Amino acid sequence: MKELLWKHITNVRKQAPLVQSITNYVVMNNTANALLAAGASPIMAHAHPEMQSMQAICQALVINIGTLDEYWVESMKLAVTAANQNNKPWILDPVGAGATAYRDEVLSELLTMKPTAIRGNASEILALAKHNKTATKGVDSTSSSLEAVEAAQFLNEKFGAVVVISGAVDIIVSEAGITQLKNGDPLMTKITGMGCSATALLAAFIAVIPNRTEAAVAATALMAVAGELAAQNSTGPGSLQVGILDKLHNISETEFLNTTTILA
Amino acid sequence: MKELLWKHITNVRKQAPLVQSITNYVVMNNTANALLAAGASPIMAHAHPEMQSMQAICQALVINIGTLDEYWVESMKLAVTAANQNNKPWILDPVGAGATAYRDEVLSELLTMKPTAIRGNASEILALAKHNKTATKGVDSTSSSLEAVEAAQFLNEKFGAVVVISGAVDIIVSEAGITQLKNGDPLMTKITGMGCSATALLAAFIAVIPNRTEAAVAATALMAVAGELAAQNSTGPGSLQVGILDKLHNISETEFLNTTTILA
Amino acid sequence: MKELLWKHITNVRKQAPLVQSITNYVVMNNTANALLAAGASPIMAHAHPEMQSMQAICQALVINIGTLDEYWVESMKLAVTAANQNNKPWILDPVGAGATAYRDEVLSELLTMKPTAIRGNASEILALAKHNKTATKGVDSTSSSLEAVEAAQFLNEKFGAVVVISGAVDIIVSEAGITQLKNGDPLMTKITGMGCSATALLAAFIAVIPNRTEAAVAATALMAVAGELAAQNSTGPGSLQVGILDKLHNISETEFLNTTTILA
Repeated sequence: MKELLWKHITNVRKQAPLVQSITNYVVMNNTANALLAAGASPIMAHAHPEMQSMQAICQALVINIGTLDEYWVESMKLAVTAANQNNKPWILDPVGAGATAYRDEVLSELLTMKPTAIRGNASEILALAKHNKTATKGVDSTSSSLEAVEAAQFLNEKFGAVVVISGAVDIIVSEAGITQLKNGDPLMTKITGMGCSATALLAAFIAVIPNRTEAAVAATALMAVAGELAAQNSTGPGSLQVGILDKLHNISETEFLNTTTILA
Repeated sequence: MKELLWKHITNVRKQAPLVQSITNYVVMNNTANALLAAGASPIMAHAHPEMQSMQAICQALVINIGTLDEYWVESMKLAVTAANQNNKPWILDPVGAGATAYRDEVLSELLTMKPTAIRGNASEILALAKHNKTATKGVDSTSSSLEAVEAAQFLNEKFGAVVVISGAVDIIVSEAGITQLKNGDPLMTKITGMGCSATALLAAFIAVIPNRTEAAVAATALMAVAGELAAQNSTGPGSLQVGILDKLHNISETEFLNTTTILA
Repeated sequence: MKELLWKHITNVRKQAPLVQSITNYVVMNNTANALLAAGASPIMAHAHPEMQSMQAICQALVINIGTLDEYWVESMKLAVTAANQNNKPWILDPVGAGATAYRDEVLSELLTMKPTAIRGNASEILALAKHNKTATKGVDSTSSSLEAVEAAQFLNEKFGAVVVISGAVDIIVSEAGITQLKNGDPLMTKITGMGCSATALLAAFIAVIPNRTEAAVAATALMAVAGELAAQNSTGPGSLQVGILDKLHNISETEFLNTTTILA
């Protein structure tokens, strides 16, 4: 399995997919750099008059609602519509799901446009599922991690998306089952936009790899393993951020195979 | 006094306040990372439909007008109104005060909404005071630093805000008096957004510490001391920026106590 | 020649020109930091009500269309109009020229406002020339690099701009002839916004140095040489980004003279 993931990582580098990101202001620079470091090419654009033609030249689309507003939500819908028409994958990052009614309403509309994949932390995935369930079908679980998996399974069944739950253990949920990765480092939570970078990598991998579940596992593993390795030489979140970009670029097959930890 | 400041620093880490920033595009990433490194949690949001509910879940608000426009000014007013209704502190960073009439007008409106604290460099504080004084009460001082202190005192008296004047010596002005800190490093002026990060820390500290003046001194000291310590291992502004984020996270009590310099 | 370029570099530091950038969200932080590291002062502003008065206090203007939209295009036109009225230089960075009809239309309008200089990669310069040529005057060349030079010459003749073509060899084209610089490092292509930083430096140099061609060569050389030197101590794109900011600040005359490579 790990060898297959590494093959996918090298394939992304070879094919260098062009990924359009409609994402939040806070992480645009990191996101573009994470894509470049992993061998993909970033495009950031949001003007309504060019959403259709911009999507046509890209291989995938990231929709990240972190700093949404009315104009940008319309940009998102235009780009998603174009991606769907062109059968291009698009990935939803539901930043702050559950924080405000506005976010939840926008996310509900986006969900009906059927994202290829969704990535968020457990509370975002839970909020997303809760807001889009009928009231009678309550989530009933004692473990919040289990609860998030159930929420992810619901989202996968209802909307067809592969779902990645980021956390100390990253969990990839799809119709193919559940994969758990135990990589990363707690210091990664002290840098903004790590999740957003993971989402962008997810888009690059799904653009290139036909099996969406494998693509999601490979992208998630790459991000977490790069973070874990970089943390070994970091003295704080500043140097970790720099080190992750370095490692996304220079990670070796041996490093990747020796570090990736897939839970049974 | 220094021990008290350190206690405040550890309190911010323990309580991890959620700080909403409506700030400029240039520094959003740094600002979020500075807050995370100091143990707080950042939220960046500006959409009108969610300003009320977003503020309700935050403990403080930063208003930084660096890249303002008509939409964002309205976001600022909506968020400030919500903060005031909820008795949450909000901090004003008057970037570019005095540079254009538009900025001065926006700042005048924001001032009437009574910021809990204001942070800027001497020329911004001077411009802010000048624009909001009656013509007859001229500032009359031979030293520009003294002049800025008088301007800060005026702002404190008229609008009730604690005022932090950033510079080679940082000056905190409030109804409790004047505190001067001699920390930092000249290389910090070669990185964009150091002041904006200081403002964000100020918000995090005021969110948690009941005494606003102490909060302002502690936040200002933390930023300047982290910069001073990081500069010792930097070869230029790039590595200094990285080093400051590291140091905000890993600064020890001994480092802080030994480096902080409060002028008599 | 190299000594002259170094003299220009020190002059920018001495005069510290104020450069307004209307640029894309992805690179604003890097751009501001590159300007600061090279000794200039950045201002980022785009609000319509302040475009006229903001330009009046700046020495140069950068127009970078990377993340354009309708509001920002209007900001660009207002600022360019002000710059032209005040005889201030303005520099065009045609990010993504040729990618969408919207970009090409906006760029055509901006070109008629006569930029002092233009900087882009070969494909952008080619797209810019192609879109603004009459159909009968086709570009006819077997080498894409030669083709880009012809496109640059066309843009110089028709619109009067100095044109910088970024690439493995940077080419500066003006009425004074063609200069080719062979510096930089392939790893620079794995960082977002290197070209945008080069454009910003170009603005700072043209603000201060009367001979536009010399200014363009000096700015282009500084960016490429800083990148080349920083790459020697980098382990990936993250550390290279940090190292370039350091080197823009601490580069010595000897380093610059020994590294700069002007092709005959």
